[in-house]
Amino acid sequence: MLLRLSNLFVRTLREDPADAEVASHRLLVRAGYIRRAAPGIYTWLPLGLRVLAKVEAVVREEMQAVGAQEVHFPALLPREPYEATNRWTEYGPNLFRLKDRRDNDYLLAPTHEEMFTLLVKDLYSSYKDLPVTLFQVQTKYRDEARPRAGLIRGREFVMKDAYSFDIDDAGLEASYLAQRGAYERIFTRLGLEYVIVAATSGAMGGSRSEEFLHPTAIGEDTFVRSPGGYAANVEAVTTTAPAEIDATGAPAAHVEATPDTPTIESLVALANAEHPRADGREWTAADTLKNVVLSVVHPDGTRELLVVGLPGDREVDLKRLEAALAPAEAEPAGDGDFAKNPVLVKGYIGPQVLGRAHTGDDTAIRYLVDPRVVTGSSWITGANEQGKHVFDLVAGRDFVADGTIECAEVKAGDPAPDGSGPLELARGIEIGHIFQLGRKYADALGLKVLDVNGKQVTVTMGSYGIGVTRALAALAEANHDEKGLAWPAHVAPAHVHVVATGKDPAVFEAAETIAQALSAQRVEVLYDDRPKVSPGVKFADAELLGVPLVVVVGRGLADGVVEVRPRVGGEAVSVPVAEAPERIIAMVEAL
Amino acid sequence: MLLRLSNLFVRTLREDPADAEVASHRLLVRAGYIRRAAPGIYTWLPLGLRVLAKVEAVVREEMQAVGAQEVHFPALLPREPYEATNRWTEYGPNLFRLKDRRDNDYLLAPTHEEMFTLLVKDLYSSYKDLPVTLFQVQTKYRDEARPRAGLIRGREFVMKDAYSFDIDDAGLEASYLAQRGAYERIFTRLGLEYVIVAATSGAMGGSRSEEFLHPTAIGEDTFVRSPGGYAANVEAVTTTAPAEIDATGAPAAHVEATPDTPTIESLVALANAEHPRADGREWTAADTLKNVVLSVVHPDGTRELLVVGLPGDREVDLKRLEAALAPAEAEPAGDGDFAKNPVLVKGYIGPQVLGRAHTGDDTAIRYLVDPRVVTGSSWITGANEQGKHVFDLVAGRDFVADGTIECAEVKAGDPAPDGSGPLELARGIEIGHIFQLGRKYADALGLKVLDVNGKQVTVTMGSYGIGVTRALAALAEANHDEKGLAWPAHVAPAHVHVVATGKDPAVFEAAETIAQALSAQRVEVLYDDRPKVSPGVKFADAELLGVPLVVVVGRGLADGVVEVRPRVGGEAVSVPVAEAPERIIAMVEAL
Repeated sequence: MLLRLSNLFVRTLREDPADAEVASHRLLVRAGYIRRAAPGIYTWLPLGLRVLAKVEAVVREEMQAVGAQEVHFPALLPREPYEATNRWTEYGPNLFRLKDRRDNDYLLAPTHEEMFTLLVKDLYSSYKDLPVTLFQVQTKYRDEARPRAGLIRGREFVMKDAYSFDIDDAGLEASYLAQRGAYERIFTRLGLEYVIVAATSGAMGGSRSEEFLHPTAIGEDTFVRSPGGYAANVEAVTTTAPAEIDATGAPAAHVEATPDTPTIESLVALANAEHPRADGREWTAADTLKNVVLSVVHPDGTRELLVVGLPGDREVDLKRLEAALAPAEAEPAGDGDFAKNPVLVKGYIGPQVLGRAHTGDDTAIRYLVDPRVVTGSSWITGANEQGKHVFDLVAGRDFVADGTIECAEVKAGDPAPDGSGPLELARGIEIGHIFQLGRKYADALGLKVLDVNGKQVTVTMGSYGIGVTRALAALAEANHDEKGLAWPAHVAPAHVHVVATGKDPAVFEAAETIAQALSAQRVEVLYDDRPKVSPGVKFADAELLGVPLVVVVGRGLADGVVEVRPRVGGEAVSVPVAEAPERIIAMVEAL
Repeated sequence: MLLRLSNLFVRTLREDPADAEVASHRLLVRAGYIRRAAPGIYTWLPLGLRVLAKVEAVVREEMQAVGAQEVHFPALLPREPYEATNRWTEYGPNLFRLKDRRDNDYLLAPTHEEMFTLLVKDLYSSYKDLPVTLFQVQTKYRDEARPRAGLIRGREFVMKDAYSFDIDDAGLEASYLAQRGAYERIFTRLGLEYVIVAATSGAMGGSRSEEFLHPTAIGEDTFVRSPGGYAANVEAVTTTAPAEIDATGAPAAHVEATPDTPTIESLVALANAEHPRADGREWTAADTLKNVVLSVVHPDGTRELLVVGLPGDREVDLKRLEAALAPAEAEPAGDGDFAKNPVLVKGYIGPQVLGRAHTGDDTAIRYLVDPRVVTGSSWITGANEQGKHVFDLVAGRDFVADGTIECAEVKAGDPAPDGSGPLELARGIEIGHIFQLGRKYADALGLKVLDVNGKQVTVTMGSYGIGVTRALAALAEANHDEKGLAWPAHVAPAHVHVVATGKDPAVFEAAETIAQALSAQRVEVLYDDRPKVSPGVKFADAELLGVPLVVVVGRGLADGVVEVRPRVGGEAVSVPVAEAPERIIAMVEAL
């Protein structure tokens, strides 16, 4: 393969695109790999499409290697199957919905669980047909509230989605592990660092799920790791609750005036100054109970107020909150909500007046607490009166929550839930997600087969996704420097970038000869044969485009040599022009 | 490659799907290549996807061979570019439209002229950048009023669309011819018979256009051919109008009572009986002027009445009418239209009261005539009074039309417009369409480059489409018999279908050995290793699936032979089992 820059459909840009926040976005656009067509929607130019095809090929090969069979579903799908599983509604505004000319409802599929379930139901009827794992590499749609970071969070994107169908739980576990292994091989072959973390299932449903995260500071996902090997998406971290406390003999709750304490810090300072503990221990923010009022939006659009109580030294983590409430969403309550609910005294909310369990009133505002708020624990919290807080308010004695919720931020140093040591936090991009769905979809859509005894049994399923375009962006993130992209050889749009510099026809002839010789030996060559472009621009373009080996044919030719230099790490070497193709091929093979 | 039927995701069906009208649809579903997901929307199963990939590969190779560069556009696109060319409106109900969560208008692209134009505008600025031809193989959407015939007229389908950009008309001609040549090679390589016919440009706009039709009785397109080599889609046939006639001395028009003449035949009979011509010639249907009232629907939804006059021996051809009126559509006028326009006396409409030119009234109903209605021609037509017709009504003397329209049916025997002899009619499937768009899109979207003199000039464009999934269906139409599909080797999902019959483990061992030996030599093998399926079912499935060579390992094994038979045309041969792989490879190479 020989691409000539003189006619290749590419233009490099010196300026960063205005909307680009991250390197992959900036560089993929500047290097002419992709162009924005609409927010979160991109066009693939020739070089980008070549990289994408290579990433897809690795994914396909590893899917096939574990026996997954490729199919291809439409993107435009009727409403009914998604209605049967309630996802038509649960997806809320993330789903692109439309009507056809007969006024029938359609959607642009975000994932295809329903369709795969129906297809297997359509074709298969016996345990003898199972297990089967099907996959597709297909264009998906999600109407993201905030498309961002180029390909990392887009609205039209390529995904590999696979679905396994098994007769029993052991089969599902085996299918799940086969996909998990394939994912490890895919990301290893792509040269994409990954961490496997425990995850929540979100709108997908099901029991066990794990994410493959590519660790990077620009990642949208926060995950935790412990020295003992625990790893989880921050949404999936469970809090190690302290033991319940025997509150017999604890002081009775007492309301105190707490003027001028707009912050938890000022409240703690006042408490230590004016209401010290009997045992002399200092009050800390962790002794205060912060109550946060949220407006929960259910997928059907209805709203409900919710108050969440958590230790004052922790913030609400919105992503953990969202995962805990999914498929509902939540936002901070507004002034209108407070106005309509005079029981909520802004800044002085306490649980004494909250919760259905506590008040015995089914219409009361629900009150959920962080797992650290155990029975017997004692708190400083709002007294539901302007300027006043209550001290020594004991959980289980003075108030009862309607349940617990995992929405407090996870902090570095928190204990791993499995006792494997203190957690450290890091950020990553979700590049894969595997789910044990169980029987949710099969139940909803009636996928049963005859078992060995001739009895109808519901099939158990797994679903397995790789964000293909997102993985490509992660590769760009992991492989660039300030000058441009620097692709690993196996996904680079070409192996060798030949640059002819100057105006000497002999240079162009020699470069042409080398380019053709390499191309004839199956080396993929990008040849910068542009006649009137300065060496400086050509070198800058080579660095921006990121082909792993750069061959410069120029002034050295007078001495019978060309220069070969790796795009990153490694010295330029002079190679006699006659040996150039052979030497370069060896270097390509060593990449 | 070795696929085993024991676990391949395929189920053959004995029954035809209820909605299948044509063989390709029936057989592709029955053989488990595709499944219907919604009207006109199909899922590709593993075997279908293999054939599709092979067809796409041929298309890609020939595109690249003429220097076209592959890109990939989104399917989900913003309204604005399509608004600029008016296609947002012109596409009418054929366009899938939707809104995103911010209430912005989007569409699912039916073709991508606008986006390619904008992309080239975005990247290129000089004549030195041209010519360039770009293509994509991409999923397209069209909300067909009547999706039918499986993949032949679908609502989601794969298309190869290419676009050329040139500085001048000569460049466009060269780019057009390069694509035309590539199309010939693609269809030749696919083994798909084709006819290139002159075509109309329809909603696409532009000047010259040609269609590649695959001749088949089930085709939706009618085309004509002459002995002298003229070929055209029936919509593009222009009528050879007779010379104008000197009507000096022609009899004056006279109204006659014509009771009981509900048909043209009865009118002609009455005319010959009661009002014979002075010169003794018989009246024929061709002497009557039939006036058809149509309700024209403009893309913006407004309606307008139109009367079309044509010789009584011809019907209105709705597809020619549609092409003539595009982007407007037309349907027969309804009773309400007649009620609102008392000037139209149903069954007795004559042009004396019609037309803006004739009546001088800008609000009058427009009146267009077939080109055969030349100045001086004389007609029997309605007298705009119940039970009466007018005789000897002369065009240009007694009425004037507002123009001509090509909407009369073309009949076998009509003269070719280029004088190359009488036309014959045939039917075909449109598998390719190439357009010289000219500057329509570049003008609308401001695509200009600097010419050699530093002056801004508008780029001229071509657009070139192949219905990839439709071509696959055409291949299935052309290659089947009553028993099933019969793929040409280069697009078949496998080269060899190995069938192991009976229960003897030795048979399965031998079959396995052959299948593996072939697969190791890059022969693509489908191996029917199902243990409990009868030979009859296996043979029927082999015939239905349509792999070109069938190898039967069964009873012959006792005599040391296996049987190799071509799926169609050719004798079964017995081959010693030891020589089987070698002999079969030779037969595959000869396919």
